[in-house]
Amino acid sequence: MNDWNPLSIADFQRRLGAGEVGPLDWWDACREMIEAKETGLGAWACLAPRPSETLPTKGHDLPPLLGVPVGIKDIIETRDLPTTWGTRYQRLEHAPTDAAIVTRLASLGALVMGKTVTTEFAYFQPSGTRNPHDPGRTPGGSSSGSAAAVAAGMVPVALGTQTVGSIIRPASYCGVVGFKPTHGTLPLSGVRALAPSLDTLGWFTRTVEDTRTVFQALTGSEGLGHRVSLAGTRIGLCPIPGSLVLAPEVCAALELASQRLAAEGAEIIEIPADPARDELTAHQHVVLAYEAARELASERILFRDEMSGALEALLEEGERIPLKAYQEARIASEHARQRMTEIFSGGIDFLIAPSATGAAPEGLESTGDPLYSRAWTLLGMPCINLPIYWSEEGLPVGVQLIANRFQDVHLLAVSNRILN
Amino acid sequence: MNDWNPLSIADFQRRLGAGEVGPLDWWDACREMIEAKETGLGAWACLAPRPSETLPTKGHDLPPLLGVPVGIKDIIETRDLPTTWGTRYQRLEHAPTDAAIVTRLASLGALVMGKTVTTEFAYFQPSGTRNPHDPGRTPGGSSSGSAAAVAAGMVPVALGTQTVGSIIRPASYCGVVGFKPTHGTLPLSGVRALAPSLDTLGWFTRTVEDTRTVFQALTGSEGLGHRVSLAGTRIGLCPIPGSLVLAPEVCAALELASQRLAAEGAEIIEIPADPARDELTAHQHVVLAYEAARELASERILFRDEMSGALEALLEEGERIPLKAYQEARIASEHARQRMTEIFSGGIDFLIAPSATGAAPEGLESTGDPLYSRAWTLLGMPCINLPIYWSEEGLPVGVQLIANRFQDVHLLAVSNRILN
Repeated sequence: MNDWNPLSIADFQRRLGAGEVGPLDWWDACREMIEAKETGLGAWACLAPRPSETLPTKGHDLPPLLGVPVGIKDIIETRDLPTTWGTRYQRLEHAPTDAAIVTRLASLGALVMGKTVTTEFAYFQPSGTRNPHDPGRTPGGSSSGSAAAVAAGMVPVALGTQTVGSIIRPASYCGVVGFKPTHGTLPLSGVRALAPSLDTLGWFTRTVEDTRTVFQALTGSEGLGHRVSLAGTRIGLCPIPGSLVLAPEVCAALELASQRLAAEGAEIIEIPADPARDELTAHQHVVLAYEAARELASERILFRDEMSGALEALLEEGERIPLKAYQEARIASEHARQRMTEIFSGGIDFLIAPSATGAAPEGLESTGDPLYSRAWTLLGMPCINLPIYWSEEGLPVGVQLIANRFQDVHLLAVSNRILN
Repeated sequence: MNDWNPLSIADFQRRLGAGEVGPLDWWDACREMIEAKETGLGAWACLAPRPSETLPTKGHDLPPLLGVPVGIKDIIETRDLPTTWGTRYQRLEHAPTDAAIVTRLASLGALVMGKTVTTEFAYFQPSGTRNPHDPGRTPGGSSSGSAAAVAAGMVPVALGTQTVGSIIRPASYCGVVGFKPTHGTLPLSGVRALAPSLDTLGWFTRTVEDTRTVFQALTGSEGLGHRVSLAGTRIGLCPIPGSLVLAPEVCAALELASQRLAAEGAEIIEIPADPARDELTAHQHVVLAYEAARELASERILFRDEMSGALEALLEEGERIPLKAYQEARIASEHARQRMTEIFSGGIDFLIAPSATGAAPEGLESTGDPLYSRAWTLLGMPCINLPIYWSEEGLPVGVQLIANRFQDVHLLAVSNRILN
């Protein structure tokens, strides 16, 4: 098994094209790893049967993700595997069609390994997944199983979604790369909506390299070369909210990232704290609660007695928010997008910020605090968690590198420089 | 039957509260009208059974849409009625839950009359519905059945969706009020996505008054008073594209609207044509094609042989659009939103523009040209079609009144002034 884990997708494709490995070999190795580790982890809601052997075997025009095993977060519908949305009360054995992203991955040659555990409807109620670095701690959420499965070497790629901090925070807690593209980049058909102004499909990998490969395959984008140097790049340090004292391990992670960036020739510029920016975390919650109450209207009535208190409280709160308050939150977020664009036009190339308030907290009853993702999700900006720092207890702590909207390609071109 | 048709929702609620009519009386009258007219019209994909008699009958706290029959466009999923998305090749007998908007309408007391005919996946391929004003003409699309059903007096309210021009154009062709709120106002869970950056849920009614009642009920918005006078209001005349010669009946409709507005004390200001604005119609098509190809990825593979040529061509075109071109179209639309906001800040209160390129064209093989809706849909602005003019052939021609984003309440407060 260990032969496989260090492999990148690109390595695997190369060996596949040369006929050195078969298209199901990676899948088989991953399944072995799942059998060895799943009992203690709880990352999987269900597992797929072994794919058929009829995949193309070698050649030059192989699909770019041929033979790459992927985990699918269980708020994403599938035709051949059940979908439960992280609930014990709603279950769809066979969706009428696969979600668009699942079809897209399959057409690129990827192999579905199974559905990964999610919190209830991708909100806060945990479903029992443990952190691979410490089984007494949460892996974060809502994409709990996807982050844990990638961290445990069970799959090289797993899909997540982020509405609050559901990709970046679990990636930080689990020590993997987590990427949230610009809002609207990937199709959400067949993905359960929580708050459509915020819901964003992304994924986890072990390396930036693999995240780039997946992005290139999914979007067909070209010219995705690595930046060889960051000389002259200006990187703004911009936690939102900026008015809080950071935890020591978060300071250490940001410090380490700054040192690496400076060593690469980049200039780190502290963006002054701004009360108007701090308010974005509150606006994000208004948009979340308002939209969730409306999108989950049917589930709220059908499953009133089974729904968690946390979700019920969110929906009740959202139901009471007046249209005008919701509109004001959306208008504030659009103004903030314009002000962000001004920061970038003013000579800042990227931003760095905490991925989470600290290392994964103890216990499984909470998935941790998404505070440092709220504003970026509201602004729809692409974010990548980079697992840069390990605490004294051996727990990972990431930082997020952030670009302006639609600058995903540029963000992925430099992200490796922080980890190398 | 004719006793019922002039009724507004507010009148009905009043009579219901006073015990003068029963909660199923309107539903029964509508069903009679459907039985009389449906054969020649083809507005309905399926009809619901008569609701149970257990509705509350009278009192002061009746739900605001109690007893109001509504048509549900057949790209909106329902648990008790089949959904076909305007196709002959995909059919879901029972969705796992009702779409969020259907649950919301039901909780407000509305009664589902049935599913109204839509074009294939809400794109251009017609499904045979005829225009109530001339059976040889299209009712427009994609919300063909909803517009025709309201125009024929079969239901007072029917849901539609607009991704290109699917509410405003059929409303104009059928001579009814059609309202597309600001993008993102209503929940789309259970509504088939075509292009999420554009997809907007709205509805048709016979009167502005009823559209206001529905908006108020759905959004809980208060202070929705009618404006008693338009004195001092500045209304910009702003067709996009602005570089084309308008059809005579469209000129006549705009002329009449301008006269009415001027008589009310409003000032009409011609907004100069702008090539950058004209390009929005092309950007809208890029966003539509790119997103549709990705959202409909599963259907494209599953139903390759059955899909219409029109839809297949759109998806093929979209598949070939590079990420960069798509991002540029979205960035252009955001710049245009900012420029629009500047026009409004510069003293313009509302805009008027053509709803369509002319009266409903002859034949059923096309649903007409959505040209004059493309930009407004891309910009996410609230639009209402006002049926103001009837051509010499007796065909309706509407104009659309448009507000800046999030100004839905203000738009609905003045719309009646053009029709009175």
